[in-house]
Amino acid sequence: MKVRRSDRLIDMTRYLLERPHTLVPLTFFSKKYESAKSSISEDLTILKRTFQERGTGLLETVPGAAGGTRFLPYILKEEATDFVGDLIGQMTDESRYLPGGYVYMSDLLGDPNTLRQIGRIFATQYLNQNVDAVMTIATKGVPIAQGVANLLNVPFVIVRHDTEITEGSTVNVNYVSGSSERIEKMSLSKRSLKKGANVLIVDDYMRGGGTISGMISMVEEFEANLIGIGVVAESSMPETRRIGEYTSLMTVDAEDNTVTAKTGNYLDKFFN
Amino acid sequence: MKVRRSDRLIDMTRYLLERPHTLVPLTFFSKKYESAKSSISEDLTILKRTFQERGTGLLETVPGAAGGTRFLPYILKEEATDFVGDLIGQMTDESRYLPGGYVYMSDLLGDPNTLRQIGRIFATQYLNQNVDAVMTIATKGVPIAQGVANLLNVPFVIVRHDTEITEGSTVNVNYVSGSSERIEKMSLSKRSLKKGANVLIVDDYMRGGGTISGMISMVEEFEANLIGIGVVAESSMPETRRIGEYTSLMTVDAEDNTVTAKTGNYLDKFFN
Repeated sequence: MKVRRSDRLIDMTRYLLERPHTLVPLTFFSKKYESAKSSISEDLTILKRTFQERGTGLLETVPGAAGGTRFLPYILKEEATDFVGDLIGQMTDESRYLPGGYVYMSDLLGDPNTLRQIGRIFATQYLNQNVDAVMTIATKGVPIAQGVANLLNVPFVIVRHDTEITEGSTVNVNYVSGSSERIEKMSLSKRSLKKGANVLIVDDYMRGGGTISGMISMVEEFEANLIGIGVVAESSMPETRRIGEYTSLMTVDAEDNTVTAKTGNYLDKFFN
Repeated sequence: MKVRRSDRLIDMTRYLLERPHTLVPLTFFSKKYESAKSSISEDLTILKRTFQERGTGLLETVPGAAGGTRFLPYILKEEATDFVGDLIGQMTDESRYLPGGYVYMSDLLGDPNTLRQIGRIFATQYLNQNVDAVMTIATKGVPIAQGVANLLNVPFVIVRHDTEITEGSTVNVNYVSGSSERIEKMSLSKRSLKKGANVLIVDDYMRGGGTISGMISMVEEFEANLIGIGVVAESSMPETRRIGEYTSLMTVDAEDNTVTAKTGNYLDKFFN
C-alpha cells in the first residue's frame, strides 16, 4: 500500500536521525514506502529545508546511480553557546568542589541530554572529516565517546588503565600521568582499531595532558591517524601542553572551595 | 510565521524522539510553530498512527490542563527477535573465543546501532515502570547503561571497582566475585542516587551473578528500589543464581575454542 506523504516524512525523519552519516539510496525509501522516486525526492527537499531551518543538520544529496541522501547532524553556534553557557552555570555550583582541587561532574556525564549536546558539538566540528572511530579512556570518557560516536555513527573504542582478560591481546603504552608525575600504563585491545583508521580522541577532563598524550601514542602504535582531540573540560593551567591542537568546551578549575568555569576554545573551531 | 504541517511533523518527530518519556504540553508545540492547538492535535494523531504502524513507539496523550503528549519508544517483538538473532550470529564467530573460556564482545559494545537496539529492548520491558536511574558497573556495562538511559531518558550511574577522587564521598560494598571466589569491593558516589529512587541494573555479561548481587546491595545501601535487572549475555551455568528475576538477551558460553550463543529469557518478559 502506498504510504501518505505525512507518514513518509515522519518515518524518514526517524530513519535518518537514527543513521547519521549513512548514505541511504533513494530506491530504499522508494521501496520501503511503495512510492515513486519523484515523490521521495520531493520529501527529501522538504526534509532538507526543515532540518536546515531548525538547526538539526544538513541533508546531503548525492546524485547518480550510486547516489542517495545522507544526514549530517550539526548544532548551530547559537545553540552550542547556550548549551555550554548552561553547562558552565552548572559547573560553578560550589557543591561540586572536591578536596584536593577536584570537581564533581559525574552527574553531568550520566545525563543523556547533556551527552547528546556534547556529542552534537564535537560531531559538528568533525562533520567533514571521515572519522572511523572515537577513542577514549575508561571510565569517565566512555559516555563522552558514546555521545560523539552516536552522532558520527562510528564505533568507539575504550582504552583501559588495566588489562582485562575479556579484551584479548592488547597493545600497551606507557605514559607520564601529569597529576601524579608517575609512569602509568594504558592498554587497548589489539582488534579494536584497524591500521590507517581515522581516530578522534575524546575525554571528560584534561589537566596536564598526560592521558591524552598516552592515547596519541596509542593511535601511533596502531598506525592509525589522529584526526582531532576533544575534551569537555580542561584546567586553565598549564597554559600550553605538548599535545598539539585540541578542542575544549570549558576551562574548569577548583581552588579554595570554589569552582571556576569559563568558555573553552571550541567556538574558534566552529564551521558555521 | 505559521509553520506548514509537513515542517511541523518533521520537527515534532525529531523533538519527541530526542525526549522520550517526557510530557510535552500542547501549548509548547502550539507556540513553537505558531499554530492552533487544534492543528497540533491533528499532527499528534498522525504522529501517533505512524509511530504505531512503524513500530517506533507509543505516543501517549495526557488530557487536561496539565496534559500534553509523551513519546514512549518501544521495539516490537519481531524486530527484537531479528536483532537478537543477528547478535547471536555475530557472537558465535570462533574468533571471539578468548583463552580461559572468555568471549570478546567489546566491538559490539562499541557499536552505536547495537547499543541503541539493546537500549530499545530494555526500555520496552520497563516502559511503564517509572525508572529513575540506570545503574551499571565500570567499564563494559557503561555503554549498555547509556543505551538504555537514552531511551528511558533518565540518568545512569556508574559503580566502580576502585574509588576515584573525582567521585567525592562514596558508598562502598563488598561482594563475592563468582569467577575468582574472592571478596571484592565496589563503590558509588554518595550523591549519585537519591533515597527511594527506582533503579534498573544493567550489565554486559553475567557469570555467577556476584557483581549483580553487589549492585543489588548497593541499591539497598542507598535505600533505593530495585526495579529490575537486565544483562546482554549470561552464561548457561550456573542454572540458578541468588539474584531473583533478571532478563538476558542471550546465553553465551565459551569452551574448547568454541563460542555458543542462544536466545536468553527476554522474550518471556515482553509486553507486546
